[in-house]
Parts: sequence; C-alpha cells; structure tokens
Amino acid sequence: MTGGARDRRVNRAIEERRDRVNEAIDDELPVEPPERLYEAARYLLEAGGKRLRPAMLLMAGEAIADVPPGSTDYRSFPDRQGGSVDLMVAAVSVEIVHLFTLIHDDIMDEDDLRRGVPAVHRAYDTKTAILAGDTLYSKAFEVMLRTGAPDDRSVRALDSLARTCTEICEGQAMDIGFEEGDAVGVSEYLSMIERKTAVLYGAAAALPAVLLGTDESVRRALYQYGVDVGRGFQIQDDVLDLVMSSDAIGKRRGSDLIEGKQTLITVHAREAGVDVDGLVEGAAEAVSDADIEAAVATLDEAGSIDYARETAREFVESGKAELEVLPDNDAKDLLADVADYLIERDH
Amino acid sequence: MTGGARDRRVNRAIEERRDRVNEAIDDELPVEPPERLYEAARYLLEAGGKRLRPAMLLMAGEAIADVPPGSTDYRSFPDRQGGSVDLMVAAVSVEIVHLFTLIHDDIMDEDDLRRGVPAVHRAYDTKTAILAGDTLYSKAFEVMLRTGAPDDRSVRALDSLARTCTEICEGQAMDIGFEEGDAVGVSEYLSMIERKTAVLYGAAAALPAVLLGTDESVRRALYQYGVDVGRGFQIQDDVLDLVMSSDAIGKRRGSDLIEGKQTLITVHAREAGVDVDGLVEGAAEAVSDADIEAAVATLDEAGSIDYARETAREFVESGKAELEVLPDNDAKDLLADVADYLIERDH
Repeated sequence: MTGGARDRRVNRAIEERRDRVNEAIDDELPVEPPERLYEAARYLLEAGGKRLRPAMLLMAGEAIADVPPGSTDYRSFPDRQGGSVDLMVAAVSVEIVHLFTLIHDDIMDEDDLRRGVPAVHRAYDTKTAILAGDTLYSKAFEVMLRTGAPDDRSVRALDSLARTCTEICEGQAMDIGFEEGDAVGVSEYLSMIERKTAVLYGAAAALPAVLLGTDESVRRALYQYGVDVGRGFQIQDDVLDLVMSSDAIGKRRGSDLIEGKQTLITVHAREAGVDVDGLVEGAAEAVSDADIEAAVATLDEAGSIDYARETAREFVESGKAELEVLPDNDAKDLLADVADYLIERDH
Repeated sequence: MTGGARDRRVNRAIEERRDRVNEAIDDELPVEPPERLYEAARYLLEAGGKRLRPAMLLMAGEAIADVPPGSTDYRSFPDRQGGSVDLMVAAVSVEIVHLFTLIHDDIMDEDDLRRGVPAVHRAYDTKTAILAGDTLYSKAFEVMLRTGAPDDRSVRALDSLARTCTEICEGQAMDIGFEEGDAVGVSEYLSMIERKTAVLYGAAAALPAVLLGTDESVRRALYQYGVDVGRGFQIQDDVLDLVMSSDAIGKRRGSDLIEGKQTLITVHAREAGVDVDGLVEGAAEAVSDADIEAAVATLDEAGSIDYARETAREFVESGKAELEVLPDNDAKDLLADVADYLIERDH
C-alpha cells in the first residue's frame, strides 16, 4: 500500500475509534457534583486529542481476538475462553491516565497552552488543576475495574496500571532533573522517555492481552511493541519541533531549543561536540526565526537530526517485529501501519 | 477503666503499631532512583505522624480475627478460611494515601508548615511536591496489590481504595469551594468532611473485613464505624483550634478563624445569626490574642462550640455502636477506646 493510502486508512481507523472512545468517556466520566471539579477534569477532552492510546488498545484487542477491525462491540468483546469483557473501559482508563498527566505536567512545566486552549491551571486555577488530575487518577482505577474480566485478570490489569503510573512519574522526575542541568547521556535520555511516554503505550497495547486471557508471551510482545512505538513517537516529536513550520506543529518551531529542553537531538549533538547551550540564547521574544534556522542547520551538520530519525525508525521496526506473535489479520496489519504512521506523521 | 488509664492504653496500642508500620513503610516504599523523587515522597514520614489510620486498620483486623491485640504477625494474618494475608501492606497503603493527600493539600492550601517542618513544596519545590504526591498515589495501589489475598478480595480492596481516593478529592474540592465563599449549611459541611477526612478512616476500618473475607454486614459496620469516628475526629480538630493554646496544637490558636476557614462551629454560628465574617478581620499579623479570645467567647455564647462538641460525641457514639457486629474481645474494646480517645485528645 502506498504511504498516502496507508495514512488515510490509519487515520480513518484512529478516527473511528476516537469517536467511540469519546462516547464511552462521557459514560464513564460524567460531570457529577462537585461539578466544577469534574468540568475541570474533563476540560481538555473537549479541546480535542487523537485518542491514540485507546485506539492502539482496541486494535491490539482486535488482533488478539482475530476479528475484523471495527466489526465487534468493544463493550462486549470476546475473550479466549468463550466469555466477554468490556475492552472499551480499559481504553477509557488509559486515556484518563494520559489526561491526568497532561494536566499535572502543564502545571509543572508552566505551560500555558495545551491543544490550542489554555491549560487547565490557566482556564481554572492551579489548585483546581492539581485536584482535577488527582480525581482522574483514581477514576482511571475505578474505570479499569469495570471490564467484567475475571478477577485474576482484573488484578493483573490494575497492577499494570499502577506500575505504569509510577513509571510515568519517575520519567517526569527525570525530565525535570534534566532541565535543571543534570548531565544526560543517550541511554539516560532513552530511559526517561521510556518511562515518561512509552510505558503508557506499552500498557495500552498489552492490556487486551491481560484482559482477554492470552499467553504471557503475547502480552510481553505487545507490551514491547507499545514501548518501542512510544519511544519512536516521542523521538519523532523532538524531530518535528525542529524541522516543521510553526503553523504545522501548532507551536513555535524550535520551542524545545528556546526552552532549553533536552531531546535526543541535543543529547547527541552535545556528545558530538556541539555547544548546545549556546545554540539559542536569551528569552523567547529575543530569538529570531533566523536564529532557529541557524541552530537547526548546526544540529543537522552534526548529524544529530538524522541520528534521531534513524533511532525512531529503528524503534518502530523493532516494535513491528514484536507483532509476529499475533495471528495474521487486518488488525495486526493496522498495528504495524500505526507504528509507521506515528513516526511519519507531519503534525 | 478511668480516662487516664484508658488513654495510656490507647496511646501505647497506637504507638506499638506505629513503630511496626514505620518499619513496613521502609520496606514497601524504599528510596529508589530517581532518588530525589522518592526522598520528597518520604519526607513527611520522617517528620512524625501517629499512623492513626493504619493502627485502626490493624486493630480492626485483630477484632475480626478474634486474636489478642499485638499477638499476631500482621504480615501473615489469619483469614476466615484458614489462609493468611499480609494485613500490614494494606495499612501501609492507607497511610500512603494519607501522605499523598497531605502533600497536595499543602500546595493547594498554600500551607508552609506540616508536622512542624516545612511542607514538601517548601522543602523541595511545587513541581517536585506535585510529582511526589502523584508517585505515592500509584504506589498506594501497587502496595495494596501485595496482600496475597485471593483475587476477588484484592479486586474489592482496590475498588474501595479507588473510590475512597475519588471521594477525598471531591471533599477537598468542596472545601476549596467553601473557602471561596460558597454558602454552607450544616449538612453540606458534614458531607464535605465525610469525603475529605472520614472515608479514609472508613476504608481503613473496613479493609480488613474485605481482605479477611468476612460477611458483608461486618464490612459495612466497620466502614460506618470508621466514617463516624473520622467525622468526630475532624469536628474535634475544629474545636481544638479554638479552645486550646497555640503551644498545645502546634499552630496559632484560632488559625481557622484567621484564615476564614469554614468549620462546623462557624457554620452553626452563622445559622444562629452571628456575623462570623466580622469576628476576626485583617491579616494574621494584625490579629491579637485578645481578638481571638473575644471571637471564641462570641462563638461560645452562641452555643456553637458546645454544638460541635456534642456532634462529635454523637458521631463517636454512633460509630462505637457499629462495633456490635464484632465478637467480644480486647481488640474490639480497643476500637471503642480509640473512638473516644480521638475526640477527647487534647492535641
């Protein structure tokens, strides 16, 4: 399939699942008293988002169950033992975790905008944003308890969810440490993004294996698929920040450089002898587009951008290779295409 | 037993459990990389705390199992079916939830001191404090998964934990709403403290019933015991803020009045026609001890302090009555004494 046709297919598959996930979020996370709290918790949902993690979870379920993509009710999804589970609530739970991390990360990073609207701590206030995130946190566990799966699988799903949340916090702590000037090597950087970003993709891909009762080998392979794809996705995000126009990425080109954020590109460049801290200096307002252009050229000459692209590609290929454990079917192909899509997307 | 002898007995019972809980926290929540994160998460533990909730949980387990208090290894505690569970990790999990709420509440309430030391967001910084709380949050779930109880009981324990955390957030949101001037009646105030404070006592008392596999009637009664005692405890806290010396309570007498915080006393006084907002005016520095003395006298004349004391007493009596479902034993007596102790304590 050509890249264009593949991208349209993947886009459509993600969008179809997104619409159903959004409906399910409304069911599982209604606005209840105290309303202001739940409105703040739900605020970013209204602002958009692709629901990539839930989509990956639902596709992984379809690949395991060997059913045609989109053919089967996610709320009553066939497991391997002739029973059924509500796979959709697991998808919602994972999205709720993601949402909680966005809200708290925006407070910690002092980011004013998210998805083109004010961050929750700006639209409301910091205490409401802290509390909205905290509420989503326990709601994710409450929702994950609604799958109707046998208790042994529920216990394993909750264990996965709890460990994933802990790792996300650890990753965010490492990222904060990096920003505060800790020396960072490639392996440390990769370890940070694994925790901060990739493990939630790993959990999303692996949870259907837990909930549908597959062999451990399938669960492990899907987890690794998700982690690898998640790492590729994050690295590609770092690349896009440098190579795309401000319009295309919805924030200023080179904003990572302006904010002094570590990325795989700057970590590589520093190891290659580039004076990364001197690339872009001064306040955001004082940095011109030409400054950014020159900085990107320097990183490009050092081979750092290509290095990041190649690393993202390697992770995605490695993730796709994990899919071998699955039966051959359209959902499996879709998971492979999603992996490619995530590092070839241009926004 | 006289009040003095009873208080010594209760104190000793709480302290014995506290020491074992502290050891278990060290085991279950070690400092791991990234160290600064886990140090921040553990920081308040070093500053003290009575570990009241874990103590109540352990005592409830002893009462259910009908074993002499302190006689039985909490790590391998007999259940009702001839098996054993680790009751101590459940106690640790509940304390971790409490710790997480302290850290985030101090950020939200902009409190600089906790347990006589700087709050985590002062000792470290706000982003580390947010993240330390978030890490404790998922750790509480991870730890609760280590009881070794059969999966059906683990699922119910996690469900209880998740619902409790959601309710605590709802209570805190209501409390923030009250501070921002929402009109508050007695029933709303009681509903707030039920969520913010009492449900965690309810969970602590009820979790052994879930984990040891008792009848639902026992679980429900112990939950209600914990909730009632927790409400009494919170109301007594509000009373102590007014009637004790600054030295005895470790913060300035009348600080709730100075901060404009709603308590059962001010809610009652307002309904009795007292101009509560005019009782203490101006910045904390401008308020004299005589101002506080006069405000307390006004609240006393309105009958509001007696009303709060009586309400706390009623909750505690109602909570103690729930203990009827338990076999007669020393641990049951201890639970009754703890209830009295919590509203008769003078600090």
